[in-house]
Amino acid sequence: MKVRLLRTIQWKDGVALTIDQTRLPWQEVFVEMNNCGEVTSAIKEMKLRGAPLIGVAAAYGLALTAYHSKAKERGELLKEIEESADALRRSRPTAVNLFWAVNRVLERARAVSGNAKALTQAVIAEAERMAEEDVETNRMMAQYGARLLRDGDVVLTHCNAGSLATVDYGTALGVIRAAREQGKRISVIATETRPKLQGARLTTYELKRDGIPVTLITDSMVGYLMSKQAVDKVVVGADRIVQDAVINKIGTYTIAVLARKHDIPFYVAAPKSTFNLNQSSKDVVIEERNPEEVTHFGGQRIAPIGIDALNPAFDITPIGYVSAVICETGILQSKELQDLRTI
Amino acid sequence: MKVRLLRTIQWKDGVALTIDQTRLPWQEVFVEMNNCGEVTSAIKEMKLRGAPLIGVAAAYGLALTAYHSKAKERGELLKEIEESADALRRSRPTAVNLFWAVNRVLERARAVSGNAKALTQAVIAEAERMAEEDVETNRMMAQYGARLLRDGDVVLTHCNAGSLATVDYGTALGVIRAAREQGKRISVIATETRPKLQGARLTTYELKRDGIPVTLITDSMVGYLMSKQAVDKVVVGADRIVQDAVINKIGTYTIAVLARKHDIPFYVAAPKSTFNLNQSSKDVVIEERNPEEVTHFGGQRIAPIGIDALNPAFDITPIGYVSAVICETGILQSKELQDLRTI
Repeated sequence: MKVRLLRTIQWKDGVALTIDQTRLPWQEVFVEMNNCGEVTSAIKEMKLRGAPLIGVAAAYGLALTAYHSKAKERGELLKEIEESADALRRSRPTAVNLFWAVNRVLERARAVSGNAKALTQAVIAEAERMAEEDVETNRMMAQYGARLLRDGDVVLTHCNAGSLATVDYGTALGVIRAAREQGKRISVIATETRPKLQGARLTTYELKRDGIPVTLITDSMVGYLMSKQAVDKVVVGADRIVQDAVINKIGTYTIAVLARKHDIPFYVAAPKSTFNLNQSSKDVVIEERNPEEVTHFGGQRIAPIGIDALNPAFDITPIGYVSAVICETGILQSKELQDLRTI
Repeated sequence: MKVRLLRTIQWKDGVALTIDQTRLPWQEVFVEMNNCGEVTSAIKEMKLRGAPLIGVAAAYGLALTAYHSKAKERGELLKEIEESADALRRSRPTAVNLFWAVNRVLERARAVSGNAKALTQAVIAEAERMAEEDVETNRMMAQYGARLLRDGDVVLTHCNAGSLATVDYGTALGVIRAAREQGKRISVIATETRPKLQGARLTTYELKRDGIPVTLITDSMVGYLMSKQAVDKVVVGADRIVQDAVINKIGTYTIAVLARKHDIPFYVAAPKSTFNLNQSSKDVVIEERNPEEVTHFGGQRIAPIGIDALNPAFDITPIGYVSAVICETGILQSKELQDLRTI
């Protein structure tokens, strides 16, 4: 089978176009981002989300600043780009790809010789290159990861680590796509992923679009299904991989504990731009989002007025729970994962 | 502190009055049930829910049949009551209190000598007695259970095992209420409990009403909070306790696995009417509810059209995960739980 791809971010003449993920699956609305502030807002509001896509979008954000700048001087332009970079860095604290992408574009900008125009061209070219690399990286990772899946496997995934989390192929869902392209009959169980419902809204949407069988469950059903031997493998993405842990969407750790208990392989698919091996889990800031995402559901209040709620957006899965990390250079098995610092 | 109680079911002159739990916390609407068919519908539609309350409501359902019957003959009336009993038994398959209550009323009815009027009076009296016993049972269980909680404990609970699941004091939340009445500062973490949101809607509602501090989380946050040592104890209710397992709201098993992993005591509070020790978990039918409860929320579709979903309403927690069962005759610790058959 061949999959129809969904390009989540496109650059055209000083405009970055993205699909508004907060409106999926009800409406397929593309929104124009005309400056870096609009990119920063889109990231904060989760119109675009997913660690790799956030990274590429941030790069395009800096490209927008450069493209529309009125700066005549190289130094002046660089300063504007650096200000945009600071705002981007404050948008979401956990996904490391954001910081990686911003730093990469800044380094490139600083390294360019020549005038403001040359610098602008270099920044745009770097963003475009990063988008292309993301696609290529996903494809390579998917080819490695697909080897881990067998014909007939039922794969559970959490949140959305698909086209919509990347530029167009996906990390965890890329692995599933590649296995399907190899002719393996893979079916997917998608957790709805409260509070933002990325599984219910986005993973089902893109798998249905590709004709990949998918069954939706609530997050609370994972243990029961595993105990009924209804899950063969787990594949998830990552927002950050540090020396001792994988940081990913809230609920991932619970699934990892359950997978271990039921002897189900637990795989993480993430590009190397997600790795931050200078850090340990103690160094990671877990983003706390607005409690209204928990007390409300689709704009409707579900809890009584005045009830407190917690809303950590991510959790921490110790690396010992991870059977393998799938990245663009291959599969890191548990032995190599024991000390990620050495890689 | 003294708690203000909420009587979930009341009998007055041939009408059973209940609070419509599907409309909480937005509206406090009491609905009249005028015949057993309305009770059966209310149970199916979860206007009233919670194993102990379902049991008492079923008894009142049979009382309604008797009260409004035009039967002159004892045998004729008994037949009508048996027909109502059959309909009640088909309403929800998992909570055993339903079957226990229906059988108890039927046995009482069959044992009564005298005419149709005497039989009617006996059935109504039995339903009233069961409601009173439920309150008394909850109070006793709560006194035993409160001993397990210490001043300052943060107690995680799932679904709603409170006033709203019983006649008026609660099982798991009764234990917490009793500890508070003893002056212990207990605070509660309530899981929202998808898909029907009993935690977000009902547990928060009744704890807020009682002034007991409560924090709402999504089901997916349990593992993270436990890993952060933010949970001291877990107390949940049960829909059925069999020889080898506790059957309770979907998601309970996941919490039990996480509690074990983090060495957190996992308590189940349930009256003996919830026990069915002639059965093992293999004998239990897990109710599969309408998948639209998962694909929709509050009438709004959250997943794309045509997406399959699963909706098991309960799961199975092996008895080995249970630190203690709290019932009206005392606390059954793990040693006694190893073979519940001997109790």
